[in-house]
Amino acid sequence: TQQLLSEPGPEAPRARPYRVSNADRSLRKGIMAHSLEDLLHKVRDTLMLADKPFYLVLEEDGTTVETEEYFQALAEDTVFMVLQKGQKWQFPSEQQRARYQL
Amino acid sequence: TQQLLSEPGPEAPRARPYRVSNADRSLRKGIMAHSLEDLLHKVRDTLMLADKPFYLVLEEDGTTVETEEYFQALAEDTVFMVLQKGQKWQFPSEQQRARYQL
Repeated sequence: TQQLLSEPGPEAPRARPYRVSNADRSLRKGIMAHSLEDLLHKVRDTLMLADKPFYLVLEEDGTTVETEEYFQALAEDTVFMVLQKGQKWQFPSEQQRARYQL
Repeated sequence: TQQLLSEPGPEAPRARPYRVSNADRSLRKGIMAHSLEDLLHKVRDTLMLADKPFYLVLEEDGTTVETEEYFQALAEDTVFMVLQKGQKWQFPSEQQRARYQL
């Protein structure tokens, strides 16, 4: 009873759910990924970023996530924000902050 | 039943996630480290500090962290601030303080 797809071993951790927002928080998508590299690929497709460069930060405080090691330490359902050239992480608006208090 | 990977012993504690900000809080990066020495090395590379001297303080109140023992007592996801010569810890701006009230 091989489970190659669901249990690829420690080098390729099981896919976990994450949420990814755009820079102005108008859009948020749920994405399964088993690595930072995998998530970056899926974000590019899902948010239709074409071939423009971008990076991921934590939506809550703008912490840049750039190593696989740090990514793996994050919890399931971590919310990321995609930032492209010229975009900056910003504090959520009052309205957006209400979301966290629910 | 060896557990070499998950329990490397007290001399090499497991890597834990931390967040490191620059002095004006415009940049914050997620970094895994298993010791203060390890974090200092990674901060130097990640924040491209070249060979300029720097030290780490707690972002929340400017407490200098200079012993391994104190570092190990800090929680995961502690936010550090890098200070270089001439830089001083400062209170977050009103806008930055809103971050902590989420």
